Amino acid sequence: MPASNQPTAARPPDGIASAAHVLGDRWTMLIIRECFYGIRRFGDMVRNLGIARKVLAARLKELVELGLLERRRYRRDPDWYEYVLTPAGRDLYGAILALLHWADVHRPAFGERVRLHHMPCDHDTHAVVVCAVCRQELDPREVEARLPHPTTTE
Amino acid sequence: MPASNQPTAARPPDGIASAAHVLGDRWTMLIIRECFYGIRRFGDMVRNLGIARKVLAARLKELVELGLLERRRYRRDPDWYEYVLTPAGRDLYGAILALLHWADVHRPAFGERVRLHHMPCDHDTHAVVVCAVCRQELDPREVEARLPHPTTTE
Repeated sequence: MPASNQPTAARPPDGIASAAHVLGDRWTMLIIRECFYGIRRFGDMVRNLGIARKVLAARLKELVELGLLERRRYRRDPDWYEYVLTPAGRDLYGAILALLHWADVHRPAFGERVRLHHMPCDHDTHAVVVCAVCRQELDPREVEARLPHPTTTE
Repeated sequence: MPASNQPTAARPPDGIASAAHVLGDRWTMLIIRECFYGIRRFGDMVRNLGIARKVLAARLKELVELGLLERRRYRRDPDWYEYVLTPAGRDLYGAILALLHWADVHRPAFGERVRLHHMPCDHDTHAVVVCAVCRQELDPREVEARLPHPTTTE
């Protein structure tokens, strides 16, 4: 994204801006998806995503620099590398599943359905986003966001 | 994003690809954030985001076409409009809060902290993503994704 198109918010950057900076690129989210699907190798990502090698190389470099992926050598001479999620990358799982459920509900015709099986309870499932304290589902009408600059909200 | 940069996946599109298509743009996620912060008007978004008016107009049009925002006239002659989240847009809340918590944990230095107060339980909180069936937190090592084309995963 060109520099002129970067958020330079009058509202100070917050965690959502940070997440948008990390994930706000269609390819990046799909590369992270591939990692959660167990794909680690450059060639597999090229095939699964139909992405240009140059674009994939740039995005992987960015994800390594951001600390979401680790580049690991799995073969020597010539050296070959694979990409695995770091703990920070793995922690995106909940958000990705929440987005997946949103799409299953609101864009059912877009693509094929991914079935998620939760092994500990042995049921097919989907993500629900709840309050860390009372474990009730979070509803925007019931959450007050206390912002750095509250005067910018109604 | 130029057409050459669109995902044209060898793996058939799924819900994550759909979500990436909708949210995979830094500005789009920030515009949705503004809506959750109670901002409805073009001029307020321009000020809060420091976004070019032309870019904002294009993104808002796209979000209305995608069914995430509704364009409402709030003044006649001249007609002025505001933008409000549709039910589909509001349903992104959980995913946005999951991303916010991820950023608070993994990118604490990036920006200012947003405090979320859950009114029903009267506690400051953050999002936790749980299994819809057993309500335990979802861990990638405990969820089996049954994909349209499992042969493309290890």
